[in-house]
Amino acid sequence: MFIGLDIGGTNIKALLTDRSGNILNYRKILTGKNAKTTEENITKVIDVLVSQQELRMNDIRAIGIGAAGTINSEKGVVITSPNIPYWKNYPIGRIIQKKTGTAVILENDATAAVVGEWWKGNGRKYRNWIMLTLGTGIGGGAIIDNNIYTGKSGSSMEFGHTTIDYRGKRCSCGNRGCLEQYASASAAVRLARRDLKKFPASSIRERIKTEKLTAKLIYEEAIQGDVFANRVFQRVATYLGYGIVNLVNIFDPEAVILAGGLSRAHKLIIPVVRDVVRARALPGLKENIRYLVIKDEEKSPALGAAKLAMDKAQRASSKTG
Amino acid sequence: MFIGLDIGGTNIKALLTDRSGNILNYRKILTGKNAKTTEENITKVIDVLVSQQELRMNDIRAIGIGAAGTINSEKGVVITSPNIPYWKNYPIGRIIQKKTGTAVILENDATAAVVGEWWKGNGRKYRNWIMLTLGTGIGGGAIIDNNIYTGKSGSSMEFGHTTIDYRGKRCSCGNRGCLEQYASASAAVRLARRDLKKFPASSIRERIKTEKLTAKLIYEEAIQGDVFANRVFQRVATYLGYGIVNLVNIFDPEAVILAGGLSRAHKLIIPVVRDVVRARALPGLKENIRYLVIKDEEKSPALGAAKLAMDKAQRASSKTG
Repeated sequence: MFIGLDIGGTNIKALLTDRSGNILNYRKILTGKNAKTTEENITKVIDVLVSQQELRMNDIRAIGIGAAGTINSEKGVVITSPNIPYWKNYPIGRIIQKKTGTAVILENDATAAVVGEWWKGNGRKYRNWIMLTLGTGIGGGAIIDNNIYTGKSGSSMEFGHTTIDYRGKRCSCGNRGCLEQYASASAAVRLARRDLKKFPASSIRERIKTEKLTAKLIYEEAIQGDVFANRVFQRVATYLGYGIVNLVNIFDPEAVILAGGLSRAHKLIIPVVRDVVRARALPGLKENIRYLVIKDEEKSPALGAAKLAMDKAQRASSKTG
Repeated sequence: MFIGLDIGGTNIKALLTDRSGNILNYRKILTGKNAKTTEENITKVIDVLVSQQELRMNDIRAIGIGAAGTINSEKGVVITSPNIPYWKNYPIGRIIQKKTGTAVILENDATAAVVGEWWKGNGRKYRNWIMLTLGTGIGGGAIIDNNIYTGKSGSSMEFGHTTIDYRGKRCSCGNRGCLEQYASASAAVRLARRDLKKFPASSIRERIKTEKLTAKLIYEEAIQGDVFANRVFQRVATYLGYGIVNLVNIFDPEAVILAGGLSRAHKLIIPVVRDVVRARALPGLKENIRYLVIKDEEKSPALGAAKLAMDKAQRASSKTG
């Protein structure tokens, strides 16, 4: 048995899985308000998963933790996390290992999500694919020759910070024209806010009198037929296409998988991305690409974290005997 | 013993190597004028390599061929080659295999160059690195987790066709703003030609009265202190930097290796690229990157082709025996 945790700024998602990836128990609880309560909540949810299945901690072979931010996986340390600001050079991996007496592996949540999707999700049939997570920013990951790749410092595949316009919009990262300035959920909202005045008939104008302007709201109006909302998605998806063309010419992937909040609008986004790739990517590379959506956004990172823990435990035991 | 061949539009470079990558013999001869004479020249140079070492064809375990263009490696077929126009869907791999009675592996020359550089060149110390070949166009390759990666159709890592400006210059590939429109040897020449009139004092003006304007000529004047020529390299290297920032944020590489004609100007190019990466790539990824130049441009592709043939022969023998 293995436990996988996905720790975000708001929620902790936790699951118990067997060696084949069957999810035996799944819990979602709130993250704490500070380091102490978050630690308590983590150990609490682990206890719940174990006791509800009438197991003991001894039955758990290893625990995998996925967390947002910059991670030193080797040392089990969160270096910085945008959503969990009280974790700064914080050895959460080692702390949980000590508290539970069980081996813990800590990884970036985007990497964990890719591993989950590769193990049990829509990436399982492909040896070479990339994932783009379209949220406030744009994250990424890649399976290369049927292996997860994380680079020299565990932080590769930052697709959101590839430029599509070297003179373009300034990004908080210091670069210009980063893809996430054009094709993230936040970019959709910014674009809508900027151009809404030119579309007095848009139904979005009425709704934002009482509601916050979000990518979800724009999407809802788009599928209701609002011309302006559709235009916003057309633009965002076109920009996303420019970024994906670069990735197709680099990775020559079998599949491109979209994840994150904005991927729920895949019916509007994927046809546009496909057209841009057909128009702009290289012959020989642009053909036979499957465009897919993540199978289980809610559980993939926790499941992937469990898988990473399992693989590490296996490597350790094959070394020792 | 293994033979490696690098077949270009002008020359065939051929070498004989042992299992450790020691080059025992090296020959460079002209490519033929048509399919028949090129075939003859290939078999001739193989004969020369073998007989000069007082070996027999039986002593050659396998032959690796690197060729420019789109290659179907599995079938040993050149699909199209820009420099060898008479090879169209041409099974040169199988032909040479039949003629020599020896196993032949056919690969793209850029892939072969990366493998050569990884085996015996400046890439041998690193598990994760990328190479950019700066010539008329820009080619690329990557070693990922200490393995060559070639994608679903063997054509990945087309770094020259990653956009740095989605509204930028049209590229012959159909995309806009491709890196090779800004940072190749041809791009340097185009830039110089366009802006030369604004620099009446440039020594380039005098030279091109009798010589062709080439990247080499611009480089020669740049190291002599010509302001305009230096400006051209500054610009080209800055653009190259924008492209490499994207690759750093994607691959998180230990090293970036430059190859191709323009890489001879590395003393002008690398400091600029390094500054651009420091200014624009992500913290955590942009540190500790080595910028290197290919160790042996002349022999790396042939050596890499031999290595690929060796690895394939090894896999085949471990399966059968």
